[in-house]
Amino acid sequence: MKVYLRGAATTKFGELWNISPRTLVGNAVNDALTQSGLNSKDIQAIFVGNMLSGALGNQEHLGAFFAEELGMIVPAMRVEGACASGGLAMHAGVLAALSGSYENVLVVGVEKMTDYQPEEVASLLMGAGSEAEREAGATFPALYALIARAHMEKYGTTEEEMAAVSVKNHYHASLNSHAHFTSPVTIKKVLRSPVVASPLKLLDCSPISDGAAAVVISTVKPKSKKHVAIVASSVSTDTLGLSERHDLTTLQSAVRASSNAYEIAGIGPKDVDVAEVHDCFTIAEIIAMEDLGFFPRGIAGKSILEGETRIGKKLVVNISGGLKASGHPVGATGVKQIVETYQQLLGIAGPKQIQGARVGLTHNVGGSGATAVIHILALQS
Amino acid sequence: MKVYLRGAATTKFGELWNISPRTLVGNAVNDALTQSGLNSKDIQAIFVGNMLSGALGNQEHLGAFFAEELGMIVPAMRVEGACASGGLAMHAGVLAALSGSYENVLVVGVEKMTDYQPEEVASLLMGAGSEAEREAGATFPALYALIARAHMEKYGTTEEEMAAVSVKNHYHASLNSHAHFTSPVTIKKVLRSPVVASPLKLLDCSPISDGAAAVVISTVKPKSKKHVAIVASSVSTDTLGLSERHDLTTLQSAVRASSNAYEIAGIGPKDVDVAEVHDCFTIAEIIAMEDLGFFPRGIAGKSILEGETRIGKKLVVNISGGLKASGHPVGATGVKQIVETYQQLLGIAGPKQIQGARVGLTHNVGGSGATAVIHILALQS
Repeated sequence: MKVYLRGAATTKFGELWNISPRTLVGNAVNDALTQSGLNSKDIQAIFVGNMLSGALGNQEHLGAFFAEELGMIVPAMRVEGACASGGLAMHAGVLAALSGSYENVLVVGVEKMTDYQPEEVASLLMGAGSEAEREAGATFPALYALIARAHMEKYGTTEEEMAAVSVKNHYHASLNSHAHFTSPVTIKKVLRSPVVASPLKLLDCSPISDGAAAVVISTVKPKSKKHVAIVASSVSTDTLGLSERHDLTTLQSAVRASSNAYEIAGIGPKDVDVAEVHDCFTIAEIIAMEDLGFFPRGIAGKSILEGETRIGKKLVVNISGGLKASGHPVGATGVKQIVETYQQLLGIAGPKQIQGARVGLTHNVGGSGATAVIHILALQS
Repeated sequence: MKVYLRGAATTKFGELWNISPRTLVGNAVNDALTQSGLNSKDIQAIFVGNMLSGALGNQEHLGAFFAEELGMIVPAMRVEGACASGGLAMHAGVLAALSGSYENVLVVGVEKMTDYQPEEVASLLMGAGSEAEREAGATFPALYALIARAHMEKYGTTEEEMAAVSVKNHYHASLNSHAHFTSPVTIKKVLRSPVVASPLKLLDCSPISDGAAAVVISTVKPKSKKHVAIVASSVSTDTLGLSERHDLTTLQSAVRASSNAYEIAGIGPKDVDVAEVHDCFTIAEIIAMEDLGFFPRGIAGKSILEGETRIGKKLVVNISGGLKASGHPVGATGVKQIVETYQQLLGIAGPKQIQGARVGLTHNVGGSGATAVIHILALQS
């Protein structure tokens, strides 16, 4: 695997009512290109991660749409896999670079969600789930509440441990000027926030956000001594619906994709210094820690509560603030995880910079785990 | 480029009210796999071409959806680029194979459109166009009518020449048991059919169809002496809206993608024996003939009227019946073009078999030409 990151940027995430998708993408791409030292004429293909632009804005054909907007008349396509659309666009971009067909590839993730009624958006997001789940009237908070209940029952995971994920990620987001929420929260505040789908409360849930992220990847090794390579890109799938699974306390797609990624990269979980994981709900981060091999089963919640994955520790998780606090513009999320990890490895992450990270991992999930995408990034110098 | 076609199949196209997308895809994949000699366990990744499943059926996440349905828990993603979604899924599949990450790749195209009001579908299809075109109330027949008028004015192309495309493609479809329409039509019948958007009449327009197509590609050379290789896969883009273009009588995306494809394959237009082109409207086939270099500008209409691209001639165009008569289930179209070309080259195309074809080309267009995808296939023996 010889693919390098040349530049990476996100917009601010949040309720960005006065900024259009074209401006969001334009800004992220402009910043990523500037950093890469390349100009728009060097880009040979574009992959766009987006889930709901057709259903929400009646704009499909986003590959050509953004190619035109960016003034890059090059091969372009949209990639969709629900909340993993950004990660899948990255995977498609990496495959395109590895194929030898394109030297410099632009990967963009974008979603504009807050212009619409939240109920409408929540309903459309169920397009990621199974027919049976839609017919039953389930929403994603309800599905992840079932997952949380199963994990609590099997391992004794507590609501306080879940709250600790929110507290950590809100604290990290308070260091991130691009985050959707920048105010810290307390365990008490999380536990007393309104119940959405018991045991999940409002502050266990990631928000509906707007935002864009862009990454320039290349098969040409950057000239700078310190640079970041993508050393693994791996995808796996699972059943769309929870009812078809044997065990609700793990996402087997994430287990398969990560063990494959570790093998490709020739590393193990202990080698990872910084991870951006898909904490669409707090329980999802606890399960991710176990699926990725960072903690034994049933131990992640306690460890997070004890601050084991907070800034300053050996393994720092969701230093961006994660989906929970940095925000979750669906198609942008998987690309933003790459941006954050890239910045941490290069040491250009500003006030939220962690020290000495050389290996980073991203974990992007679609639906309730029907798709999982893992990337491993390494600092080379 | 060392990618081989191992198997390829389509369902019947048409108004298939009693068959679900999962059954359509299941049937096409089953037939393609049987032909490939591989079984489902050999497939390592799935690329799904589809445009409107989210907007029409509220089912997004089709990669994981079909992976589960097919019993293949492997990396999967949906690729979208309006009416070029199938062609782009092929391109993504070819890149995946060339990357060395996956040996055997399944490419699926599917669209289920006739369960909905045609007006609703026509409106959603405008998601492929520009905002200005939607705001102006344009539909694709209206946009292609503008293109037709421009071509008539510049080259003297006639309504009779356009009608001849429909007559040829309906005749070819009469030999194709999988076609949406299997009755021949006459020039008079086309000219007297109701006006949709002058000068385009009902029988100048492709229908709204249901259907699926599947292709198994592989980096492993088939053992059979006669086999088909993909010798070029090329994509280009252009402005989404017509008003931004200098010349309405050509799709520059198709010119760029095809000249690139010819260069990759090391051949020219004269070497092509069989072509499946994107005749969403009859004028589109006339322009395709000129964009692909098969005829000089302004000559294609006359040549088609004289029968130059009919079965029995040196270059046979849209032997399947094309979008016009074989049908246009949007996401399936680009994959079906590959299926038809593969069958013609291998000599397994049944009553519509043409003689001695060794090189085939497919031309799949998104919107009014914002995306164009060209594949060149060659018989090797």
